[in-house]
Amino acid sequence: MAASESELIERYFRPLSAARADVALGIGDDAALLTVPSGAELVLTTDALVEGVHFLPGAAARGLGHRALAVNLSDIAAMGAVPAWMLLSLILPAADEGWLGEFVAGLAPLARGYDVALVGGNLSRGPLSITITLAGHVPPGAALRRDGARAGDALYVSGTIGDAAAGRELVQGLQPAHGQPPQGQPSQGQPSQGQAVRALDAQLRERFERPQPRVALGQALRGLASACIDLSDGLYADAARLLHSSGCRGQIDAAQLPLSDALRAYGGARAVDLALGGGEDYELLFSAAPAHRAAVEEAAARVGERISCVGTVSEGAGLFVNWSNGTAMTASAPAGFDHFGR
Amino acid sequence: MAASESELIERYFRPLSAARADVALGIGDDAALLTVPSGAELVLTTDALVEGVHFLPGAAARGLGHRALAVNLSDIAAMGAVPAWMLLSLILPAADEGWLGEFVAGLAPLARGYDVALVGGNLSRGPLSITITLAGHVPPGAALRRDGARAGDALYVSGTIGDAAAGRELVQGLQPAHGQPPQGQPSQGQPSQGQAVRALDAQLRERFERPQPRVALGQALRGLASACIDLSDGLYADAARLLHSSGCRGQIDAAQLPLSDALRAYGGARAVDLALGGGEDYELLFSAAPAHRAAVEEAAARVGERISCVGTVSEGAGLFVNWSNGTAMTASAPAGFDHFGR
Repeated sequence: MAASESELIERYFRPLSAARADVALGIGDDAALLTVPSGAELVLTTDALVEGVHFLPGAAARGLGHRALAVNLSDIAAMGAVPAWMLLSLILPAADEGWLGEFVAGLAPLARGYDVALVGGNLSRGPLSITITLAGHVPPGAALRRDGARAGDALYVSGTIGDAAAGRELVQGLQPAHGQPPQGQPSQGQPSQGQAVRALDAQLRERFERPQPRVALGQALRGLASACIDLSDGLYADAARLLHSSGCRGQIDAAQLPLSDALRAYGGARAVDLALGGGEDYELLFSAAPAHRAAVEEAAARVGERISCVGTVSEGAGLFVNWSNGTAMTASAPAGFDHFGR
Repeated sequence: MAASESELIERYFRPLSAARADVALGIGDDAALLTVPSGAELVLTTDALVEGVHFLPGAAARGLGHRALAVNLSDIAAMGAVPAWMLLSLILPAADEGWLGEFVAGLAPLARGYDVALVGGNLSRGPLSITITLAGHVPPGAALRRDGARAGDALYVSGTIGDAAAGRELVQGLQPAHGQPPQGQPSQGQPSQGQAVRALDAQLRERFERPQPRVALGQALRGLASACIDLSDGLYADAARLLHSSGCRGQIDAAQLPLSDALRAYGGARAVDLALGGGEDYELLFSAAPAHRAAVEEAAARVGERISCVGTVSEGAGLFVNWSNGTAMTASAPAGFDHFGR
């Protein structure tokens, strides 16, 4: 016997309504009532995961619960803001309580970890999609926008990039895993290295399936970064967006890209391509004036995040990639994943 | 040649970004930056329209554009709040610019009429669904909640009810329209009445297809109504919710229900059933203490809205309907449209 919408909400989502003193009214009325800190600006973002577009049919519900919130947290991180309240709009083919339990098991730890309260939403029957709206706040004028990069600034990225794109290939079976070659074909790795390779591949899968938003880093960069964006569509595409918004030209040095050992082992000659073109890393790309260099490095160290200087901002337009052999790849328009692209 | 997601957003949605002085940053960054009026509480709600659940395949895009925002405005109205900013998450099977143009033509007048700015969202390819998150604000402590009704209060509804349920039947062809009987069957109306009946039926369709949120009324009821809810699932179901939240018992007098001439002509003996059980009227149901009676009537008159006293609140639990012949229908649990109901 299927449970009703309100029973499902009570059972699975009410427990996500974390106790926050600033929630005057949460789930269960026509709308939520919330108190934004005095003087702060409200930050609002929404992102959707659609079956067949953002994930394959049959994708694990636990991973989707994590990703659905993580991608929104990443947008809040890129603004240097503090996440606080979310709304969940869930369209499900059936009232599958096993699926819901797993979904919440993926969502809840991230929500608790960032002190995000679920304050509303809805549950409808239909083709699977998950839309989360996340609200937060930031001191007035302190938000990290895309349009503040200036000539002379350095370009930084957090963490390592390209891992999620490799992980996606592994998860979706687009490329054979190192440790699990297709039957009848020789393994690319030495037998004695099999276990180590499998561990590296697991790291890449983890980066794709459980992206970690850089919320603390975004906040630490307030007053230091001149512009910031999160890497959802790939370094090249997202850097082009930041530079276009800022009215500047940028240069990325391929040799400076922070590539994990796992990506190098998996991608070989493709590693740099995966780092530049692959999306879903949810690292931060930001610009900062040279005068802030030491402060930026201290801020990142304080929150335990690795950052790497990968290029520079100059006057003009476009985004140029310097390869280690001295040639340059150029393009002038943003590229990247586009749901309705040609 | 299909346009890209960003081109579609620029062409169709950027013009919906109404110029509001409190939008520090709208569409085009990782998140929007907004200024909530000093001291006010933030109000957040989200509602989704899913093809095959909330509307039939092939439903006119213009009507969907209107409805998608109207149902969210109605939630804000039920809180007595002021709408301000929206996020739109649109999942479309294809980049159909004709559909998008019509959708925006339905959405834009309502957004402008209520000074709502589109400040973010996303466009994905997939089975048609429309999710809007609407944010607004209300003076602290002034919001109309569901849980404030007290024994002795009167129950009021705005406008007329049941019209949308009748309109839905007409639109979806569930019942023959008066003016258009199935071929070969005698018309229920006299030939000379055909035109008048068609005009009445058009009123009912309009109520279903273009619901009008009672935003000004909600605000006018601040400080007067003890509890408020909007009628999305029908008077009976929504009244039961309000009373359950308030921990009270309620009585509705069927003879007092405000029924339009169009509904009486269409529904005949079913008119009261449609008014009690049919949803999607998006009128307000609210309670108010007897001492506020005159002030409530003045407030409604000031904003040009009709209100009707339809019942009373007492101690206890449950919701009772008094029929005009003196019998009472009783039930103790909320009913109404439930997407995962039995």
